[in-house]
Amino acid sequence: MAIRSTVALSSRDDLALAYTPGVARVCEAIAEEPALAREYTWVGHTVAVVTDGSAVLGLGNIGPRAALPVMEGKAVLFKQFGGVNAVPICLDTQDPDEIVRTVTALAPSFGGINLEDISAPRCFEIERRLDETLPIPVFHDDQHGTAIVVLAALTNAAALLGRKLGDLRIVVSGAGAAGVAVTRMLLAGGAGDVTVVDSRGVIHAGRDDLNSEKRSLVDVTNPRGVSGGIADALQGADVLIGVSGGTIDESALAGMTPGGAIFALANPHPEVDPAVAGRYASVVATGRSDYPNQINNVLAFPGVFRGALDAGASTITDAMKIAAARAIANVVADSVTPDAIVPSPLDPRVAPAVAAAVAEAAQGQPEAVLRPAVAVAEAA
Amino acid sequence: MAIRSTVALSSRDDLALAYTPGVARVCEAIAEEPALAREYTWVGHTVAVVTDGSAVLGLGNIGPRAALPVMEGKAVLFKQFGGVNAVPICLDTQDPDEIVRTVTALAPSFGGINLEDISAPRCFEIERRLDETLPIPVFHDDQHGTAIVVLAALTNAAALLGRKLGDLRIVVSGAGAAGVAVTRMLLAGGAGDVTVVDSRGVIHAGRDDLNSEKRSLVDVTNPRGVSGGIADALQGADVLIGVSGGTIDESALAGMTPGGAIFALANPHPEVDPAVAGRYASVVATGRSDYPNQINNVLAFPGVFRGALDAGASTITDAMKIAAARAIANVVADSVTPDAIVPSPLDPRVAPAVAAAVAEAAQGQPEAVLRPAVAVAEAA
Repeated sequence: MAIRSTVALSSRDDLALAYTPGVARVCEAIAEEPALAREYTWVGHTVAVVTDGSAVLGLGNIGPRAALPVMEGKAVLFKQFGGVNAVPICLDTQDPDEIVRTVTALAPSFGGINLEDISAPRCFEIERRLDETLPIPVFHDDQHGTAIVVLAALTNAAALLGRKLGDLRIVVSGAGAAGVAVTRMLLAGGAGDVTVVDSRGVIHAGRDDLNSEKRSLVDVTNPRGVSGGIADALQGADVLIGVSGGTIDESALAGMTPGGAIFALANPHPEVDPAVAGRYASVVATGRSDYPNQINNVLAFPGVFRGALDAGASTITDAMKIAAARAIANVVADSVTPDAIVPSPLDPRVAPAVAAAVAEAAQGQPEAVLRPAVAVAEAA
Repeated sequence: MAIRSTVALSSRDDLALAYTPGVARVCEAIAEEPALAREYTWVGHTVAVVTDGSAVLGLGNIGPRAALPVMEGKAVLFKQFGGVNAVPICLDTQDPDEIVRTVTALAPSFGGINLEDISAPRCFEIERRLDETLPIPVFHDDQHGTAIVVLAALTNAAALLGRKLGDLRIVVSGAGAAGVAVTRMLLAGGAGDVTVVDSRGVIHAGRDDLNSEKRSLVDVTNPRGVSGGIADALQGADVLIGVSGGTIDESALAGMTPGGAIFALANPHPEVDPAVAGRYASVVATGRSDYPNQINNVLAFPGVFRGALDAGASTITDAMKIAAARAIANVVADSVTPDAIVPSPLDPRVAPAVAAAVAEAAQGQPEAVLRPAVAVAEAA
């Protein structure tokens, strides 16, 4: 990855314009009207990809330096699919207060913050605090990117199965960053019956070992008051979504209603072997590129940020995420098969469709406070 | 300015290699041997250009957002002349502790830190603390970039005048970031008689209004114990270097020894009008592109960082700065005239020459602790 200049510097005049003294006029204009920064600098097209290296891929807490290649890879995808400049920022601290302080301090340089590979439950607090404070979108991709693509995939799977999302019994295995976000996204997207299982069993009101994030799920999930383990949760379930990183025993799948869906998204080892999953469900998805139906965040984040930046959104609302999921699903809606419920991660139609849907949803949402720069840009 | 990808992403294989799962192997290698980050990621070619917007050009404290265009312009110059990726980081804080903390936290993402447009005397403390803490070069360009180019210019001017640097009586007008650094650089480069004047007069031991930075100059400057104002300092002086941003009255120049040099570097209004300066000195330089002898930092910083990064230097020593100044001077040493004591800011020979000289000086300097990555890179 490299920086490239978008202006030529071949004469003293070029130099005088791009640097002193010419640049002073641009500075003065922004000093007077800060929103102009989005037009006159690269911030309107640029995000920071911020990590503390605490939960990198399946490698765990390998620290900021070793996390950098992932952030660079992410930045390349941001550029290729969304036309978004992304700068890897790997932080030499894992203290949430310090992370919030640091990201807040460097925020004026960027049009958005993509949080990445920060471990749960710290990631929830960090994202919430930054999103409340900063006037630019903050998006923890491990949560929302995954959640958006799962909602897209399940939307198409439900259509394929002739079911409505609201009628499906759904079990989410895993209550880390992805599990919590997937659950919330499915509920926001119209699911009615979601039960969440963590490593100690079904999440329900009787548990006294829940962190605040899991506790917040108690009131909105598990409508039939199930308790016990994953096998109990899966009795009569139509859909299993694995985002746990663990494994799920085949015996637990036997209670599922036949003809449903299993998304086993742990990477590189799915919670359920896809061949085994195929015996208990009609639609199987994984996180891997070597099986059909890869649930890959790259379907979401480039378009989500492109759309949010284009709209001048100050935050990314549920409505914008749902719009992104529907846009992803729509790209292949007319050609859905059990082996193709989501587009290929390389499908060039996806990011522009997501960007347009997200930008439109931002305009329509009162919560997505649009920054003054939008008005300025439109007036120009 | 934009990010560009240096790898192609056109197939699932490309995607699997650049992102998951291929990138995991790179992460693991760096987790085991952190120095490999310089080879396997962009940090070995990338610096942060950090400002708090407190002293931007002649515009003053316009804040981080309005400072961004300057940082972008700087980044373009870094790329064009040094092949260095530079990322603008404009900080939403002007508290030195917070700046040090923030830059320390984000340092793993970069191979060097270029501090820019931070007001004096805060800039001295910030740079010193970061340089002591971080394992990568930290360089406040307003100080050292200016100082290096001034030393280069004065080296050639002295040669032209048939004088030795050590024999010249030099007056530095201004004791901010540039003034202090120019003074130290000239002394390190061989000057013997430097007198510094701030807005309240000559800096000498009898002053009780000096900040710690100015106080540190007392023992090494003003060898003849001058007191009074700029006119007193200039009595018998050969060289005047204006880095004050103010103006110097023509009457004060009358005491200068004829046939010397005047560098009036304030931008856009030189301390002395060049036409007036020409009546009192044989060589006149300014910071402006529309007069001969433009003292422009771009002659220094791209090559200085390129050289420091190439050498894997952990700091930028005086020896490296002096090497940079000599390299700049040498580019035009054979063709020096009163109107051409420094190369053009666009001269493509400068940055490679500076980079080579700085890298060589880094290798030879015990203080410039070279990081293990150099050994790794050499062994590869």
